Amino acid sequence: MTTRTTARERVAFSGARSVRIDAAQVVRPTSVAIIGASEDFSKFGGRFVHNVIKHGFAGRLIFINPTRDSILGRPAYPSIEQAPGPIDVALVAVPASLLRETIEACARAGVGACIVVTAQLGEFDAKGRALQDELVAIAQASGMRLVGPNCMGFIAPSHRLGLTSSPTLQYADHLCPGAVALISQSGALMGTLFVLGYDHGVGFSFLVSVGNQADLELCDFLEAAVEDAETKVICLYVEQVSDPSRFAALARRAAVAGKPVLVVKAGRTEAGRTMARSHTASLAGSYEAFDAVCRACGATLMDEPEGMLMTAGLLARNPIARTDGLGVVVSSGGGGAVLADRLTQAGATLVAWDEATSTRLGKHFLPQHRNNPIDLGAHVGALGPHVFHDTIRAVYEDPQVGVFVYLFTPQPLMPETLDALLEIWRDGRKPVFVVLDTSRFAEDLRRRMLDAGMPFVTDIDDVLRGVEVVRQRLAMATPEPAPDRPPRLPPVAPGVRGGFLTEPETKALLSAYGIATTQDRIVATRQKAIAAAREIGLPVVLKAVSRRIVHKSDGGFVHLGLENERAVADAFDAIASAWPDGDEPLAVSVQPMVQGGTELIVGARHDPQFGPLALVGLGGVFVEVLRDVQMWPAPVSPPNAAAMLRRLKSWPLLAGTRGRPPLDIEAVADTVARLSWLAHDLGPRLIDIEINPLIVRAAGFGAIAVDGRANLGTSA
Amino acid sequence: MTTRTTARERVAFSGARSVRIDAAQVVRPTSVAIIGASEDFSKFGGRFVHNVIKHGFAGRLIFINPTRDSILGRPAYPSIEQAPGPIDVALVAVPASLLRETIEACARAGVGACIVVTAQLGEFDAKGRALQDELVAIAQASGMRLVGPNCMGFIAPSHRLGLTSSPTLQYADHLCPGAVALISQSGALMGTLFVLGYDHGVGFSFLVSVGNQADLELCDFLEAAVEDAETKVICLYVEQVSDPSRFAALARRAAVAGKPVLVVKAGRTEAGRTMARSHTASLAGSYEAFDAVCRACGATLMDEPEGMLMTAGLLARNPIARTDGLGVVVSSGGGGAVLADRLTQAGATLVAWDEATSTRLGKHFLPQHRNNPIDLGAHVGALGPHVFHDTIRAVYEDPQVGVFVYLFTPQPLMPETLDALLEIWRDGRKPVFVVLDTSRFAEDLRRRMLDAGMPFVTDIDDVLRGVEVVRQRLAMATPEPAPDRPPRLPPVAPGVRGGFLTEPETKALLSAYGIATTQDRIVATRQKAIAAAREIGLPVVLKAVSRRIVHKSDGGFVHLGLENERAVADAFDAIASAWPDGDEPLAVSVQPMVQGGTELIVGARHDPQFGPLALVGLGGVFVEVLRDVQMWPAPVSPPNAAAMLRRLKSWPLLAGTRGRPPLDIEAVADTVARLSWLAHDLGPRLIDIEINPLIVRAAGFGAIAVDGRANLGTSA
Repeated sequence: MTTRTTARERVAFSGARSVRIDAAQVVRPTSVAIIGASEDFSKFGGRFVHNVIKHGFAGRLIFINPTRDSILGRPAYPSIEQAPGPIDVALVAVPASLLRETIEACARAGVGACIVVTAQLGEFDAKGRALQDELVAIAQASGMRLVGPNCMGFIAPSHRLGLTSSPTLQYADHLCPGAVALISQSGALMGTLFVLGYDHGVGFSFLVSVGNQADLELCDFLEAAVEDAETKVICLYVEQVSDPSRFAALARRAAVAGKPVLVVKAGRTEAGRTMARSHTASLAGSYEAFDAVCRACGATLMDEPEGMLMTAGLLARNPIARTDGLGVVVSSGGGGAVLADRLTQAGATLVAWDEATSTRLGKHFLPQHRNNPIDLGAHVGALGPHVFHDTIRAVYEDPQVGVFVYLFTPQPLMPETLDALLEIWRDGRKPVFVVLDTSRFAEDLRRRMLDAGMPFVTDIDDVLRGVEVVRQRLAMATPEPAPDRPPRLPPVAPGVRGGFLTEPETKALLSAYGIATTQDRIVATRQKAIAAAREIGLPVVLKAVSRRIVHKSDGGFVHLGLENERAVADAFDAIASAWPDGDEPLAVSVQPMVQGGTELIVGARHDPQFGPLALVGLGGVFVEVLRDVQMWPAPVSPPNAAAMLRRLKSWPLLAGTRGRPPLDIEAVADTVARLSWLAHDLGPRLIDIEINPLIVRAAGFGAIAVDGRANLGTSA
Repeated sequence: MTTRTTARERVAFSGARSVRIDAAQVVRPTSVAIIGASEDFSKFGGRFVHNVIKHGFAGRLIFINPTRDSILGRPAYPSIEQAPGPIDVALVAVPASLLRETIEACARAGVGACIVVTAQLGEFDAKGRALQDELVAIAQASGMRLVGPNCMGFIAPSHRLGLTSSPTLQYADHLCPGAVALISQSGALMGTLFVLGYDHGVGFSFLVSVGNQADLELCDFLEAAVEDAETKVICLYVEQVSDPSRFAALARRAAVAGKPVLVVKAGRTEAGRTMARSHTASLAGSYEAFDAVCRACGATLMDEPEGMLMTAGLLARNPIARTDGLGVVVSSGGGGAVLADRLTQAGATLVAWDEATSTRLGKHFLPQHRNNPIDLGAHVGALGPHVFHDTIRAVYEDPQVGVFVYLFTPQPLMPETLDALLEIWRDGRKPVFVVLDTSRFAEDLRRRMLDAGMPFVTDIDDVLRGVEVVRQRLAMATPEPAPDRPPRLPPVAPGVRGGFLTEPETKALLSAYGIATTQDRIVATRQKAIAAAREIGLPVVLKAVSRRIVHKSDGGFVHLGLENERAVADAFDAIASAWPDGDEPLAVSVQPMVQGGTELIVGARHDPQFGPLALVGLGGVFVEVLRDVQMWPAPVSPPNAAAMLRRLKSWPLLAGTRGRPPLDIEAVADTVARLSWLAHDLGPRLIDIEINPLIVRAAGFGAIAVDGRANLGTSA
């Protein structure tokens, strides 16, 4: 399903009319048939007809209806096979009972792709799933593609084609051509976001509802958007990513191409519930994994669809910011104070005006009022358009300002203020983010901005989101390439048995990947335990070594800080007497007692959706209670691992704070990187692996794995 | 300035026309004069005239202009003294140069209150401050009240009076009478929120812009709102609270009266900067103090003004919720998934349908689709209004549902859906929160809801806010009364010197308030140190005791874990040799070494704005790095102190988690309560006091103050 044809190719099938098309061509068709066409707006087929006619599709439009000669004055054909070809896209709005024969007819007629609106198939019950599979098989046998089923079609503004049942199209007087591609797993949401974009002047290259993704799926349209010259920003509403590695590769391509990919993923709290089920899952639930993958690939996970679209509207119609410092102009002191609070709290930087800017602002403002945000209401002297114009210009031209922000509130001279804003936006050297409220009061300004194509948002939250995307993109303009394999790694994946590994087995794996571990001795008698303790040097630790003991510390199988030989002997005896029945011979690990240092957890897991992921956090309560963990797709380079550490809330404890020495970050980063390669090499065999604790010492003194566990699948 | 007259009283001043009025009467005047009245909309005086005329003030309206006989066809008088009285409110829109004589004339004419729009006074420079003070003195001498200066007037919808210069009033065709009072320190924001309310059907009892609060201030209008029968919800935009204890008392009264008080306070991040300056300030910056005061008084601090008003609109037109469980109905699976994620992440509870509800839903939905939220799009069988009606009704009537939420997305049968929603809203047993997007698509529904007076919001965030206020109010329906004084407290504030107290001085204070501290000995010689150690029992701690050593641990003045007499002697010598020059005699504290347990910080400070506050958090990194601290106004009752502990992010560490025993929460809560009474008793003399650490042991084994410091002002 991940293969696709990259160019239109006509294939021999049922005569010369057959067209094989890809996702990019689906949303740019030259001929469209509507099967189940109707005049009745209350029917699906009728809504499609009315929507397509209202917006005057630029290509060839064919209605199929077995019982009518014409629909709304246009000829109708009894079947797709009797209609003139070739047909790029056939919209299928028929009852489930007619679906199989309709798809077969389309295949015979050489249709390029069927958009299947019919619902209650794969998403509904077993019968529906079986029928859906059959449709896919029919399509694949003929080279025809399917979108859906259970989708709501697509909108191709540049083709003046609104091939969707969404009633929102009846309210729009045009289809908003532009630079935002929207790919949605929810059809209703596509309609909602279309009309939101319409009201705010967000133009679209295309919008598509992918439904059940039985054939063409989200990534097919994502690829089309990445390659599409019209598209500058890509919005995704995702419930499930079918092909995560393709998704990641496409997101990276988009980042390299300078196209922001904004994503809303549903199911965050379901992931949360799954998270709570087990310890490791709680650190690496799939939403968090997806978040890590998105960040690693330069995509931005957002909290809600409307905010995503408004942010896309800002980004698509502004130049790329070179720095993230903000210059903010407001006309209400109160509104400005709240905006300053919210921007600063969100981590944005309000620049300090440089001297030239201060001088320019000095023409109209007392020194105590030359703040950022600057409040136009605080000017001195006669009010006139020049005050607003000069101020806006001065702030826009401050060399430290990377993004200009203006907050409209009801004020004098609003039209003249907009003149000044239009001027700097058209100048086009820096992004200009304007907040204009939703009220009637702003209607004239809104109309002028819509006519000019200038972006605006109605909510400060959307400015915060836009600024955050700017910051993220500046921090990682292009996603890191796959890191180099560090030295001293085995050339191939290690051969290792499945199931829960013992601590020595886990440490052997870690050692093979160049991770420092304690040098332990495995013994089976009290005498050897004492001898080993003598060699290692007191104090020592004794631990049971058994495949059947997963949580050693729960059952008296771990004895720390044994200061003398008597204590070693007692600990050995305690383990021996608690040893589980069975044929596994007694085995006790004698280990040096590592003292001092700070405990970290370094782990990796293989997410069934998103592949190998590395994770790191401070040990104990930081992970267990505060969930202060960072994840990143494996393999991770040491600099990237160090960046993970810096994102921890507990980072100050690692960096050295209030008299504590800085810890050996380099050693920790190296450990994370090496473990991530182990996870990478183990591939899907890895369930999870954890160094707990990794004890890290002051900078230059290294880090050492003191205990570890791993769980592997039984076969590769 | 905090005194006020509680009833209208006519006083003898310049004849019989003089009226003395309070804030409640200011916003409900029967006669209004506009001084500086003009026909020119570009002038302040002109905007007032046009706004008042447009909305047809129900009372007597008098224009004052020295150069005109009439304004817009109505008679104008040359001066206030020549105009017919009595005049309740005079709007003063004259240049600063004419201000003094205008206010004097008003005072002579017996005006009730002047609304002074003129700006660049107290907020601007020293000259302006002086003039402002003069105006207040003139007014006070005559019993006249002032609003402003630097304000934008007020709106009294029930009086059809829009006495503000805000241009937004020209766009409104009525003044939205209703149950929300808005008191704003920003005039522009009053205009913004008025028009937002207008567009969303939020009705107002009054809106007032208080400006510089030279005379009548925020609390005067807050009191008016609390007492006003029309007002059900109170919104405040605050930059500075002039009289915090009056504010707190009024907020409590509002809570008792069942009127939610919603507050936005600007300057959060300025507070953040102040916070960072010193250790204790970083725990108790004034925004955090205000937040604690608001929560203690049952008021809700919100993040932004628009959200505050939309939440107020929901609360003012819905009954009070009895439980906070949500029943959610949506028409888009995608939108529902995002909404469920966001609600759950915000801590809201989606109820599990009870059996009767499930049975009712079973009429239209398969078992796997009977979720909460329930997606109307997932129904089986023929679609008709009854599907939506039955579903909405079933969810509304589920006994566990405390708040009903509906998310509109473009869908079939929207008008019929609204019929069902109107029906349950009119039923009035539970709050009904409807989200309707801002698009043209929703225009007809919006109009119908506006006409019906049914509340709606356009943003899911506003539902989250509304649900949060419901939860908070249910958690504390009436604010806790002032707690009882615990036993064993001194009857009066302790007599104690000012400045930094030594550890023994601090511990003496703590002991006097019944807080357990270590039993320490103060010694001046090595021999006595050893003797003390012997008595106390090894290991011991030695610390220097000096008024000049504020940070003992920085200079080698603290020696922990001294295991034998030799170590005690060495520690004593080390302190003696590091002892600072001066005439303070050597003093060393010998203390028991408290081992085990968990370290907390318990503190109190006197906020210059908000009075005494108690704070508590886990010691070390939890406070210093993670800022995991809870604050509450002092005095605090033990149950309330326990509630502070439960709100800590690190609470699981206190409650017992993953095999740790639960700690002695009762002992900690008792300590917090006692320290809060000490702070209360010390009053403004307290700068700050801190027990660091308080070592708390397992439940039943108590807590003990091991070290402490305090800083007091030199005079009471």
